[in-house]
Amino acid sequence: MKYKIGILGYGNLAKGVEKAILKASDMELVAVFSRRADGNLATNQSLVMLALDKLKDYQDKIDVLILCGGSATDLPKQSVEMVKNFNIVDSFDTHATIPEHFKKVDEIASKNNHIAVISAGWDPGLFSIARAMFGAMIPSSSTYTFWGKGVSQGHSDAIRRVEGVVKGVQYTIPIKDALDLVRSKANPELTTRQKHNRVCYVVVEKGYDREVIREKIVNMKNYFSDYDTTVNFITDEEFEKNHKGMPHGGFVLTSGNTSDDNKHLMELSIHLDSNPEFTGSILLAYARAAARMNAQGIVGAKTVLDIPLSMISPLSAEELRKTLV
Amino acid sequence: MKYKIGILGYGNLAKGVEKAILKASDMELVAVFSRRADGNLATNQSLVMLALDKLKDYQDKIDVLILCGGSATDLPKQSVEMVKNFNIVDSFDTHATIPEHFKKVDEIASKNNHIAVISAGWDPGLFSIARAMFGAMIPSSSTYTFWGKGVSQGHSDAIRRVEGVVKGVQYTIPIKDALDLVRSKANPELTTRQKHNRVCYVVVEKGYDREVIREKIVNMKNYFSDYDTTVNFITDEEFEKNHKGMPHGGFVLTSGNTSDDNKHLMELSIHLDSNPEFTGSILLAYARAAARMNAQGIVGAKTVLDIPLSMISPLSAEELRKTLV
Repeated sequence: MKYKIGILGYGNLAKGVEKAILKASDMELVAVFSRRADGNLATNQSLVMLALDKLKDYQDKIDVLILCGGSATDLPKQSVEMVKNFNIVDSFDTHATIPEHFKKVDEIASKNNHIAVISAGWDPGLFSIARAMFGAMIPSSSTYTFWGKGVSQGHSDAIRRVEGVVKGVQYTIPIKDALDLVRSKANPELTTRQKHNRVCYVVVEKGYDREVIREKIVNMKNYFSDYDTTVNFITDEEFEKNHKGMPHGGFVLTSGNTSDDNKHLMELSIHLDSNPEFTGSILLAYARAAARMNAQGIVGAKTVLDIPLSMISPLSAEELRKTLV
Repeated sequence: MKYKIGILGYGNLAKGVEKAILKASDMELVAVFSRRADGNLATNQSLVMLALDKLKDYQDKIDVLILCGGSATDLPKQSVEMVKNFNIVDSFDTHATIPEHFKKVDEIASKNNHIAVISAGWDPGLFSIARAMFGAMIPSSSTYTFWGKGVSQGHSDAIRRVEGVVKGVQYTIPIKDALDLVRSKANPELTTRQKHNRVCYVVVEKGYDREVIREKIVNMKNYFSDYDTTVNFITDEEFEKNHKGMPHGGFVLTSGNTSDDNKHLMELSIHLDSNPEFTGSILLAYARAAARMNAQGIVGAKTVLDIPLSMISPLSAEELRKTLV
């Protein structure tokens, strides 16, 4: 028996989920539902792509629908709407409104006997697990999250809005000295900007003054002005060669003490070649959990903290005890 | 309301649990039960220490009994016996017999409506979570566990059995080149001995030949002969000054790919000043989970993989969503 998966949306994240399904022997992709018209697209497999209004015919043909839209406008509407008819997984990542999103989705999910795993992915998601777990294991502690090296979509967009910029990408980079200070168990107080630098690679249109563009970028309020920002001007060729990937990564560190004498450090780090493929792979693992838990009669909204890790593994609980515990 | 905790045994691990209780505002130590006679011992708090036969009077006075005995002889008997009357947490760490231990404890726990969290701690425990979680998030992957730098009790005991050795301690040390090879995402095949060196510090009795002792140690079968082992001869003074601590640590690394193009690396590392204090702190966190889950009617044996991480946190699910997800 395979879990029957539907995907809503067909951007980078959805393509990541699709690739993850190809690698999971217990998973089957039923269809991708997209605003685009019906028809088959050339992808890794013979993909069934359907218009959104076809979703209503798939209520009994899909175990879990994975929502791959964005958190700004898509998910606040879609998660609530889709959980009426499907078990869902989303990657809602606007940290400030997660409690509100949870509450809305939970109400509709419970009413319709579905399960909704919200805010899955790596942050929120894997990093949420690390923060909660580390903090619970050493209550007298401080926890730090660093992001990068990785592309920030919002900051890259901001660069591209500067006049004269043809192409631009921004990497968020954790500051090694800050990381090492945390690793020394010094429990420093650090703001986001004390933990990260911003490095930009920009292709400029002929005739524009690079120094003017650099000044505009590094002084941009809310984006760069509070950070140590470097702007590198490169050729279009170099941009295409070196800056089309979607690498990312990050660190969660907790240091604390269990007595006056003894301190401890716990660190999770990830280094990703492709942010959307890794995130998609995690969403699929939580789709497995959603299917299993709903089959046990569990309904309502859940975050990764509410779900035992045995639920996301392709191995059975017995196999896990035998091989991985 | 505080969770009422009992501790069985009073070795280093039990003292770690005791210290953890002092730092947890939702926990209360009811009593330590030990083979030693009744009476109060001078510890960090006014400790109630009772003989084992008093346990029967405490069935309604303790929410969770934390078992702090060893895996070789204590826990295989005690966990099965104690779960008849108590919710329990143990740190059973003989990996090969975890399935058998689970089965025996599960049967008695279920029959008596108690919950038993077995094999909590950091390995098994935290590291089991990392291995299962990383593997589920990237199914096409290899996972590696490195231990150390830390004291191996079994190997230290072996050194001390060599004639002429007065004091001895053995540190297991992860080999940096092997760690770095894994970090390069090369997915090498590595045996335990290819991942670790063994470094010994030995105090020798007057009149014994150091070279003879060194030879005996490095050639000891099952312990040292397959490893790169270094023996350092030190003074009693140096031993007392630098080698009385119980530091430990380790690494879990998973590298794998989500497509032909993209590889990822996930790494958990811990650096501990005190192995028993950290382990004790984790056992207490899982005692919180045991109390909460049993109050919800959940019974039987559980490993850390069966327990949602929200259950071990002193924060409520709402607070977790607001602050840590």
